[in-house]
Amino acid sequence: MHLGGKLAVVPRAPLRGRGDLALAYTPGVAAVCRAIAADPALLDVYTDRGNTVAVVSDGTAVLGLGDIGPGAAMPVMEGKAMLFKHFAGVDAVPICLNTTDVDEIVDTVARMAPTFGGINLEDISAPRCFEIEHRLQQRLDLPVFHDDQHGTAVVVAAALTNACFVVGKELEELSVVISGAGAAGVAITSIVLRMGVGDVVVCDSRGIVESGRTDLAEYKRRVAARTNPRGLSGGLAYAMPGADVFIGVSGGRVPESVVAGMASDAIIFALANPDPEIHPDVAHRHAAVVGTGRSDVPNQINKVLAFPGIFRGALDCKARRITENMKVAAAVAIAECVEHPSADEVVPSVFDERVAVRVAQAVMAAARQDGVARA
Amino acid sequence: MHLGGKLAVVPRAPLRGRGDLALAYTPGVAAVCRAIAADPALLDVYTDRGNTVAVVSDGTAVLGLGDIGPGAAMPVMEGKAMLFKHFAGVDAVPICLNTTDVDEIVDTVARMAPTFGGINLEDISAPRCFEIEHRLQQRLDLPVFHDDQHGTAVVVAAALTNACFVVGKELEELSVVISGAGAAGVAITSIVLRMGVGDVVVCDSRGIVESGRTDLAEYKRRVAARTNPRGLSGGLAYAMPGADVFIGVSGGRVPESVVAGMASDAIIFALANPDPEIHPDVAHRHAAVVGTGRSDVPNQINKVLAFPGIFRGALDCKARRITENMKVAAAVAIAECVEHPSADEVVPSVFDERVAVRVAQAVMAAARQDGVARA
Repeated sequence: MHLGGKLAVVPRAPLRGRGDLALAYTPGVAAVCRAIAADPALLDVYTDRGNTVAVVSDGTAVLGLGDIGPGAAMPVMEGKAMLFKHFAGVDAVPICLNTTDVDEIVDTVARMAPTFGGINLEDISAPRCFEIEHRLQQRLDLPVFHDDQHGTAVVVAAALTNACFVVGKELEELSVVISGAGAAGVAITSIVLRMGVGDVVVCDSRGIVESGRTDLAEYKRRVAARTNPRGLSGGLAYAMPGADVFIGVSGGRVPESVVAGMASDAIIFALANPDPEIHPDVAHRHAAVVGTGRSDVPNQINKVLAFPGIFRGALDCKARRITENMKVAAAVAIAECVEHPSADEVVPSVFDERVAVRVAQAVMAAARQDGVARA
Repeated sequence: MHLGGKLAVVPRAPLRGRGDLALAYTPGVAAVCRAIAADPALLDVYTDRGNTVAVVSDGTAVLGLGDIGPGAAMPVMEGKAMLFKHFAGVDAVPICLNTTDVDEIVDTVARMAPTFGGINLEDISAPRCFEIEHRLQQRLDLPVFHDDQHGTAVVVAAALTNACFVVGKELEELSVVISGAGAAGVAITSIVLRMGVGDVVVCDSRGIVESGRTDLAEYKRRVAARTNPRGLSGGLAYAMPGADVFIGVSGGRVPESVVAGMASDAIIFALANPDPEIHPDVAHRHAAVVGTGRSDVPNQINKVLAFPGIFRGALDCKARRITENMKVAAAVAIAECVEHPSADEVVPSVFDERVAVRVAQAVMAAARQDGVARA
């Protein structure tokens, strides 16, 4: 699968002789260049730009492997590009950078932006990922999307919606514990708050993220300010008693005694890969709905349900950016692909071909509603 | 041909189900990442990097259109990428930059270098193109090749070799006039000097480039120091009397009265496109061999004869850079593809499939001789 790489860049039309050559390249191409120079909107008519996304990484947070560098990150970016094409027909180009400096990454991506219709940031460590995404969003009139944050958050939101339906609980009434305050944890916090969940408690490796702590980075202080309405403090074990939902995006392991204290009809999404924070067997003893990142048990909560359709929709309506509403719309569309949610099916299969299409449609509608669509 | 763009980025293997997905992406891809992290040489085994070239432009010197910007340059870069794939199986990725600052271009390209096996610079205006190429060559352990300089120069060198055979003149005895002191003119000067031509006179729009002039940029002063052995000065008309060879890479038009003063059995390569500096009808009245950039008359001197094979060879032997000997070897290989050179055939057809293969072989052999090959 990986030998010799997983991608090819190919002509969309054959070159059958001098005529084709003269049309595709000089002198014929000059007419197309002149047309775009006169009307930049023709760029998306006469080039592949409007269907092309850069998959940009600095290799600092690759899968669960950590900071393995830009070269070793390449196989993941190629895999991602395969998925973009397979699920949504998007042409994705891996771009791995040999710098971890925020200014340098922002400048580099911004300078090559004329080539791309969107920027998918991937496997960039927190907290740099937040600033890089934010600054690129400010600087570029293009969808910029850090998939480790928002892709995960969108699919978790979809799964949570259907899981609530299965256990008969309302989102507004839930008490949710999120273990992990990195890229995914922060984005999940934002989306569940936006969906109306009132009681969210976030934990990092040192315990509950709360405003009394003096060891918090700025972005975690912002998390603390928006969460923990009951003013809890201490380790994860102090957050879990009575919790309706546990969402793990941290690695590590939660003792069964702690899991046992959750509310009845609990929901557990333990997404660390390949070893979930709570083993599915343990989770099933104490929860009504269990999801993981794994493909060998039911309810695989996988970003591939989200990013292909989100970019397909954003590119097709030439969105200036990806708004919060577009992400929520994607989550709702994913959830609705499951016609009869059950404990064993709160998300559609990653191979359900309807998903990317429906997500794209929902994202386009939301983009138009938010006034960020140009087409 | 151009509608919707000319390229696609496609998976090299199908994704037929969960098994393929788990192999191409998580969790399977992790093993490949770990292997590359442990041994960076595996990058070229397990990714497409070793077969991928960035086609980088800032859109400042696009075809004959000049500074039309990075967006309007995109169709040319896509066309170039088509040719890379068609003629040499190279995966080429257009990267158009929205900066014309030398430092910024160098930094940007250097930072994304882990993604690519080679860098093809394209349509960047002189004199910035010289410094950008030089600094990237210093900074990167990769082939960096400004095609407007060296691609053109290699094919001119090939054509000149065969044209000399046709008219029965030795390279060493030639007097050569090069009209144009931009990217192509400077590179042609270098390669013909390297091939042993002793008498080269270069002209820019103000006349003969010679050390008495006070209006010369630094790079033109270096040209002046290496050329014009007879110490000529004045306009192009003062360089042409008795010249064996005219090479035009400037645009503009040379009066027939000036052309008429060339030596007997003259050689004229008037490469401005679509309007050669000397019209082929005029040229034929005063020269034995005539070449242009046009496809509708014999002897089309086209870079596409050079760059696909040069990069194919450089990638296949993992060359650290492209040396002068590699370029000369490419020129010789192109010339040798014409079995029986004649006035109407001093270069092979651009559709001669042997060319890229032979150029690649010659480039690899030269790279090994120069000690820059890693495989």
